[in-house]
Amino acid sequence: MHSNDGSWMFDCGEGSQIQLQKSKVRAGKVNKIFISHLHGDHMFGLPGLLCTISGNNQRSEPLEIFGPVGLRRFIRTSLELSRTMLGFSYIVHEMKVLPCQIPPEVQKWKIEDSCNEQRLHPNERKGCLIEADSDNVWTLLSNDKISVKAVYLKHRIPSFGFCIQEAASPGKLDLSKLSLQGVKPGPWCKEVKEGRIVTLPDGRTIDPADVVGPPKPGRKVIIMGDTCNSSEIYTVGMDADVLVHEATLQNSLKDMALEKGHSTPGMAAEVGKDLRIRLLVLTHFSQRYMPVSDEYEEEETVSILVKEAQEIMGPNRVLAAEDFLSITIPLRPAPQTEGSEVNEHNLAVFKQSSALKEDHAENSQVKKKVLKHNGEENELTSTEEVKAKRLKVEEPPS
Amino acid sequence: MHSNDGSWMFDCGEGSQIQLQKSKVRAGKVNKIFISHLHGDHMFGLPGLLCTISGNNQRSEPLEIFGPVGLRRFIRTSLELSRTMLGFSYIVHEMKVLPCQIPPEVQKWKIEDSCNEQRLHPNERKGCLIEADSDNVWTLLSNDKISVKAVYLKHRIPSFGFCIQEAASPGKLDLSKLSLQGVKPGPWCKEVKEGRIVTLPDGRTIDPADVVGPPKPGRKVIIMGDTCNSSEIYTVGMDADVLVHEATLQNSLKDMALEKGHSTPGMAAEVGKDLRIRLLVLTHFSQRYMPVSDEYEEEETVSILVKEAQEIMGPNRVLAAEDFLSITIPLRPAPQTEGSEVNEHNLAVFKQSSALKEDHAENSQVKKKVLKHNGEENELTSTEEVKAKRLKVEEPPS
Repeated sequence: MHSNDGSWMFDCGEGSQIQLQKSKVRAGKVNKIFISHLHGDHMFGLPGLLCTISGNNQRSEPLEIFGPVGLRRFIRTSLELSRTMLGFSYIVHEMKVLPCQIPPEVQKWKIEDSCNEQRLHPNERKGCLIEADSDNVWTLLSNDKISVKAVYLKHRIPSFGFCIQEAASPGKLDLSKLSLQGVKPGPWCKEVKEGRIVTLPDGRTIDPADVVGPPKPGRKVIIMGDTCNSSEIYTVGMDADVLVHEATLQNSLKDMALEKGHSTPGMAAEVGKDLRIRLLVLTHFSQRYMPVSDEYEEEETVSILVKEAQEIMGPNRVLAAEDFLSITIPLRPAPQTEGSEVNEHNLAVFKQSSALKEDHAENSQVKKKVLKHNGEENELTSTEEVKAKRLKVEEPPS
Repeated sequence: MHSNDGSWMFDCGEGSQIQLQKSKVRAGKVNKIFISHLHGDHMFGLPGLLCTISGNNQRSEPLEIFGPVGLRRFIRTSLELSRTMLGFSYIVHEMKVLPCQIPPEVQKWKIEDSCNEQRLHPNERKGCLIEADSDNVWTLLSNDKISVKAVYLKHRIPSFGFCIQEAASPGKLDLSKLSLQGVKPGPWCKEVKEGRIVTLPDGRTIDPADVVGPPKPGRKVIIMGDTCNSSEIYTVGMDADVLVHEATLQNSLKDMALEKGHSTPGMAAEVGKDLRIRLLVLTHFSQRYMPVSDEYEEEETVSILVKEAQEIMGPNRVLAAEDFLSITIPLRPAPQTEGSEVNEHNLAVFKQSSALKEDHAENSQVKKKVLKHNGEENELTSTEEVKAKRLKVEEPPS
């Protein structure tokens, strides 16, 4: 995810560094990595990625990595045994897992998941142990621009979903209303926009309630780890712009999906509908579903998963994730009437593009295709591996 | 490497499982893995590969993994933290590193490289600690069909080269010579072929020296880890059929290569020439050298590395490794006169083919090219990543 805070990465399976290098994302600009759970297909690419980032380093601040307890030990062991020295510092902040997250069979298999905090890797800085609050929410990050909260997801091992909330931006100062009061704009306008009542030199007071429009809500993105029950996201996920949710197997295979700790498109879409999500992006497809291309019949592809989710979410609110798919999330308008913005967003306003570098797009490894949505043509670029979920958040106006 | 002992893999960088699945090699048939050293590009793919093998498991015997001390800890930590249960057992045999292998900067950075031998992973069986003998040779495996010995290589961290020696097969029984003695073949022939003098029921003795030709020497393959000085291989590597040696940078960049612990084509070829190697396969190329294809000028590609080695080894004795390149090593003829077989082998007798699965070869990801050697056309298949070094040993006649 790109925002004005940098490039953030969510999960890092094997081969992520290879795909990253083919993409327009600059490895050296990745400044935060979030790992949803410790299954290999979500973290085995991390040590290699750190090496790649090290070779393209543009950071002065440490790289921050967030994930469940055990992640620090995995990273440190991998870097130490491979004698890897990085060109930057890193910090691993771990989420303390709740007892209810640990299935009995995992509880029985005792492992060492902590590490010696007296002997860090030479590039490591001491990270935090983040505990859940009384609502079972882990606050990973919170500043005046953005916050990231995590909730737990039911899976075969402890798994998390991340909710990224952009801060609201101040409403627009209505110059015509100032003019009606016979006041000319001045440096004090900034304070009024920020919500403070200002007294002018002539004694008049300017109340933001009179001259400033409603604040523009920030955008909200939810990116989930593997799960067969994501209901905890209801605590923080209402009205998100985008929900990235796994849909491993089709609805008719729900029993198998549940047994493996996974979801169907129907399950993902029910969550999306309940939360009034504007765009549901399905991901983590079983290998039995091929990427959409001319080579395969539609019913062999992930299209059938998208269709199943569309039956619940509506036709313009569901996409299948693909490597290099880039989605631009539009800034939210200031609300006119409560809830009205829900219907103003649909697939057509989420600009899709390819994050694949042009020199890779030109070579024969990449199959291009054109999807039609609402009469508009959006060019997507896909490779055979369907797993990436990079989202782009438009820069808010400064 | 395929032999009648199964499929063996040498080193396992990130993404190896993905390439393996595109190849004709069946993941479930891999029964031994050798790791030359613990740098990430040689081992970070191992945990993921084990998961892939687990899903395609066809083994009853444990998978054996050989590598330097520290490998067991890396594998166990990765599998434990990701809560990976495999569908088979595995054993890690570690090579005890000699003090002379550890550069001072590595010695200073103390890490934990052993693990608790009382608490194995549930799929793990207890492995050995293999020590070097007085010639600085580690014997990893030795039976009546094949042996694997390792020697140390100078590199930035402890690194090893592997010498795989097929056992000699018995010479041919000369039936015409038996006939001259008026003897008809019988079940005792097997004993004679194996070198024992046999007394027939009528009291006559048959001496193998009279009726059995010279034994056919077994083939020998050397696969080296990263190195800037591979002279220890001289102990065991004489007259090998194939030497896989790294050649990271061209001859003019030798100083840079040495500084990074790597070799040039010239260095690799000098070793190849000294050891009277029949085929030198260069590998581990810097990313600055592109794979050979129509897209690049020849001087931008690994061709320049091959040429530099050819200047020393001769034009028909050097190849560049590529993903999916498969080389069939011809059986050795019984020696007629000492040393004569050296000249009987050249590039033309090493059959090259592609180990890429046909469904992958057909899609647009694969660029095909035809190389000419000695007037013969050999079709190779390459992808953009140049790193694999799978060798195929022809099945010896039973």
